[in-house]
Amino acid sequence: MKSPTIIALLHGPDQPGLVSRVSSWIFLRGSNIVHADQHEDPEAGIFFQRVEWIPSGQIDEEAAAFEKFASQELGMTAQVAQSTHRPKVALFVSKIDHCFHDTILRFRSGEMAGELACVVSNHQDLAEDAARYGIPFHHVPVTKTTKAEAEAEQIRIVHASGADLIVMARYMQVLSESFLEKAGCPVINIHHSFLPAFAGGKPYHQAHMRGVKLIGATAHYATADLDEGPIIHQDVTRINHRNAIPDLIRKGRDLEKSVFAQAIRLHLDNRILVYNNKTVVFD
Amino acid sequence: MKSPTIIALLHGPDQPGLVSRVSSWIFLRGSNIVHADQHEDPEAGIFFQRVEWIPSGQIDEEAAAFEKFASQELGMTAQVAQSTHRPKVALFVSKIDHCFHDTILRFRSGEMAGELACVVSNHQDLAEDAARYGIPFHHVPVTKTTKAEAEAEQIRIVHASGADLIVMARYMQVLSESFLEKAGCPVINIHHSFLPAFAGGKPYHQAHMRGVKLIGATAHYATADLDEGPIIHQDVTRINHRNAIPDLIRKGRDLEKSVFAQAIRLHLDNRILVYNNKTVVFD
Amino acid sequence: MKSPTIIALLHGPDQPGLVSRVSSWIFLRGSNIVHADQHEDPEAGIFFQRVEWIPSGQIDEEAAAFEKFASQELGMTAQVAQSTHRPKVALFVSKIDHCFHDTILRFRSGEMAGELACVVSNHQDLAEDAARYGIPFHHVPVTKTTKAEAEAEQIRIVHASGADLIVMARYMQVLSESFLEKAGCPVINIHHSFLPAFAGGKPYHQAHMRGVKLIGATAHYATADLDEGPIIHQDVTRINHRNAIPDLIRKGRDLEKSVFAQAIRLHLDNRILVYNNKTVVFD
Amino acid sequence: MKSPTIIALLHGPDQPGLVSRVSSWIFLRGSNIVHADQHEDPEAGIFFQRVEWIPSGQIDEEAAAFEKFASQELGMTAQVAQSTHRPKVALFVSKIDHCFHDTILRFRSGEMAGELACVVSNHQDLAEDAARYGIPFHHVPVTKTTKAEAEAEQIRIVHASGADLIVMARYMQVLSESFLEKAGCPVINIHHSFLPAFAGGKPYHQAHMRGVKLIGATAHYATADLDEGPIIHQDVTRINHRNAIPDLIRKGRDLEKSVFAQAIRLHLDNRILVYNNKTVVFD
Repeated sequence: MKSPTIIALLHGPDQPGLVSRVSSWIFLRGSNIVHADQHEDPEAGIFFQRVEWIPSGQIDEEAAAFEKFASQELGMTAQVAQSTHRPKVALFVSKIDHCFHDTILRFRSGEMAGELACVVSNHQDLAEDAARYGIPFHHVPVTKTTKAEAEAEQIRIVHASGADLIVMARYMQVLSESFLEKAGCPVINIHHSFLPAFAGGKPYHQAHMRGVKLIGATAHYATADLDEGPIIHQDVTRINHRNAIPDLIRKGRDLEKSVFAQAIRLHLDNRILVYNNKTVVFD
Repeated sequence: MKSPTIIALLHGPDQPGLVSRVSSWIFLRGSNIVHADQHEDPEAGIFFQRVEWIPSGQIDEEAAAFEKFASQELGMTAQVAQSTHRPKVALFVSKIDHCFHDTILRFRSGEMAGELACVVSNHQDLAEDAARYGIPFHHVPVTKTTKAEAEAEQIRIVHASGADLIVMARYMQVLSESFLEKAGCPVINIHHSFLPAFAGGKPYHQAHMRGVKLIGATAHYATADLDEGPIIHQDVTRINHRNAIPDLIRKGRDLEKSVFAQAIRLHLDNRILVYNNKTVVFD
Repeated sequence: MKSPTIIALLHGPDQPGLVSRVSSWIFLRGSNIVHADQHEDPEAGIFFQRVEWIPSGQIDEEAAAFEKFASQELGMTAQVAQSTHRPKVALFVSKIDHCFHDTILRFRSGEMAGELACVVSNHQDLAEDAARYGIPFHHVPVTKTTKAEAEAEQIRIVHASGADLIVMARYMQVLSESFLEKAGCPVINIHHSFLPAFAGGKPYHQAHMRGVKLIGATAHYATADLDEGPIIHQDVTRINHRNAIPDLIRKGRDLEKSVFAQAIRLHLDNRILVYNNKTVVFD
Repeated sequence: MKSPTIIALLHGPDQPGLVSRVSSWIFLRGSNIVHADQHEDPEAGIFFQRVEWIPSGQIDEEAAAFEKFASQELGMTAQVAQSTHRPKVALFVSKIDHCFHDTILRFRSGEMAGELACVVSNHQDLAEDAARYGIPFHHVPVTKTTKAEAEAEQIRIVHASGADLIVMARYMQVLSESFLEKAGCPVINIHHSFLPAFAGGKPYHQAHMRGVKLIGATAHYATADLDEGPIIHQDVTRINHRNAIPDLIRKGRDLEKSVFAQAIRLHLDNRILVYNNKTVVFD
């Protein structure tokens, strides 16, 4: 049995002694650091740290005390998580199902530090599969004219499910800026190209037209600017002139599953800090 | 000792029996096919073939006879090369030297099916190194106002050297449309990004700004549209938040060397066919 | 709708004119080659070819005629398949389920040119999941003392299912030489290391002990020599000192799924020829 | 201009508060940590740390004081380096020259935090090239009967050159256990396979015979057990049935150059700790 840990993600203006002050605070409370990683962006003058420790005292109190210490004494922004807390995740899908199955099976296998709370879809195609997996399925049709109400309904479902994270498993609708604000939690999207190449629709068709020799997939946090959010993870695979568009789609499915899963895992493990539309990934 | 071979690159409108007609023509002249590879683009209706054979007769005559057969009887465009012919290559450089050294060393090691004819540079920095390698070095300064004359001088040097191919080893000037026309031979360029992402100047800075997780390099044939020519080869390498721009440049150098070398090798081995601003690479 | 095709895999002693004779035979019957790929092993003096064509005549007759032509006139061994025939596959599993789910989902998605006929397992853990997927599940317990009878029962199930291929999705028993003979069909296994490194049991533990920087997976045809059969496909992924054995197992799962799936797909697409305990893969 | 830094590599028995004690020691002396990375091997109970800081005081004194603190107060083994110190490197070669040129060019380009002190070879083939690069070249022929004297001469040369590191750029002789002891400095070797697969001679021939689908290269510290030393870095590249042994050798050269260079760079950047015949690489 692993001991429960506190994981803090800190960032803020760089200043001398931060590593020492953080580690000493933890040590002096009788706690034991199990991992610590830090990074400075010298151009931006920002310090980043991920530190994980086994608290000697009561875990909630220690977490709260650290948050206060970080903000009041260090002037840093801190996200403090506990390893025993398992965040809830809302899975958005349309009809394409490879990321849907892959994500659910990874949660089932214990690979993810969280729980799937619900599936939300604008189509009914995956309702039966979701039921077999025992995950609540919500069908919210979206049309041009009903988009605002549909998003309100989605927000209601997400909030009722207690989700701390939304993941878009090839969900084929653009979420509005208003949705992203009201959701109040991060949204991870998987785009089927090596961004910034081939943003927008039909990236495999764009890639085929341009004659690239590698295709890619990109997991990023969704922002109001489509396909422009902070990139979490990317990967590519080799293609050749024999590969027609269906081959690109087939090869791309494996990339999308793997890149999407990595991004969700890194997020749930509290390994990602966002700043200046980029990510620091402590892996 | 390998027997001399003829290598033909054919392309043209798809029609039934092409594989049979080509292979039978070769067989009936008592020659022996050592490699044959073909490809159809069903959308474009184009047939592509690379076929290599040991001719039974006199090699020049056989090559000429095949070219006539391909164009007159099959209605195909054919580039016919002989393995004993070693094409001459003009190497364009500026000050950055990693692709310069790498390319020359690969030619020296016998890895390339051709010979370096000359080095052309708009700076004198690599003159001494070129001399040590025993390769004629031509300094042709280029300024905004002298570009036309400089290009005329470069063309003169290239033609005098007998070059069949120009390779731009991080040559930092854009070649004009007029240069490309007058050169009368293909030009291979190495761009330090995964095109079409980060075309234009300072791609590593662009990549750093965007926060991508992989950087790339792309070798392509130069065309009048900058960074838009047919892609020959691409590769990527992983980066992380610890990598500042100098790290990207360092990691990128290895990519550039390797991708550039592959493209030159594939070209000299007569493995590349260009159509619709894309390449078919028979590797 | 794609036209039905015949796919022939040929191999035998190299001799002049083979490409011509095969392509002419097809052309003269009014049929049209859609793909052709050949390879010579000059050391072994063996010629290999994969050729696919749309027959003009009745497909069964054309296939039979070609087989006769290949063996009697060319003296080659030919495996002749028809694109409309969908081979049946028996899936062997134990308790570990990632390759099990992944393989089934790929068959369901239409990615594989065949059909799952049955699941055979020495444990009951995956019976319910197999039922949900609608695939017959056969529980055949295996102990040291009952291995012979168990294998006889497995053979009976495989034959009754009509399976043309057995795939071992992390099936944790060694199949005996006698089983492999009686099965009468190829068996593809996935080994969780980069063979020939770390053959045998617990390869991730062996890799961790040795301190390698990459872990791998290998799909191969099972033979009487454990982990020594012809390799079909391999891949690796990077690890570092932070990765404990559970991390290797997690990362390895993705490798195993992907490598296993590639091997099955290549086999069902009739792209693999075996000789001298190696494979020629026409991809 | 970067400020001079001290880099300490620490390892020893894990104990609470190590991160805090190290960072506080540095902070309390008015110095500023620029990087810190740590790792625990929970099975072995060992703590590892790489910490780099800008000392406020005189750099030699600070380095010495830290070394004393680490050993006497923490009971840790510490290697303490200064960023302004540029270690000297002895390059051992035979006739094969790709790693030779590549390594020298990387040192010349400023990519390596050290300096080439000398080239030692059992052949004279590369004497002229070494001279052109301006690096002292020592020819020490080695035969079965003269091996002991030859090694004594090599040791004398290495010591006279002041080398802190020996790198074997495809040096084709096995260094004896006695040599490794007397050298008194680490030795990095590049082996042209993905170890532990294909240890010993002619690994590309072994790989070709076995029919693997990937070939590799491994950089490791040389120990008395041939090809069994701690692995620093590894990489692989894909091959196929078309690749004969010369193709494997050509593809392998690129792997060897890149893997060897990475290992040397990581070593000179003080990023490698060795324990239990494995490495911790803080990259």
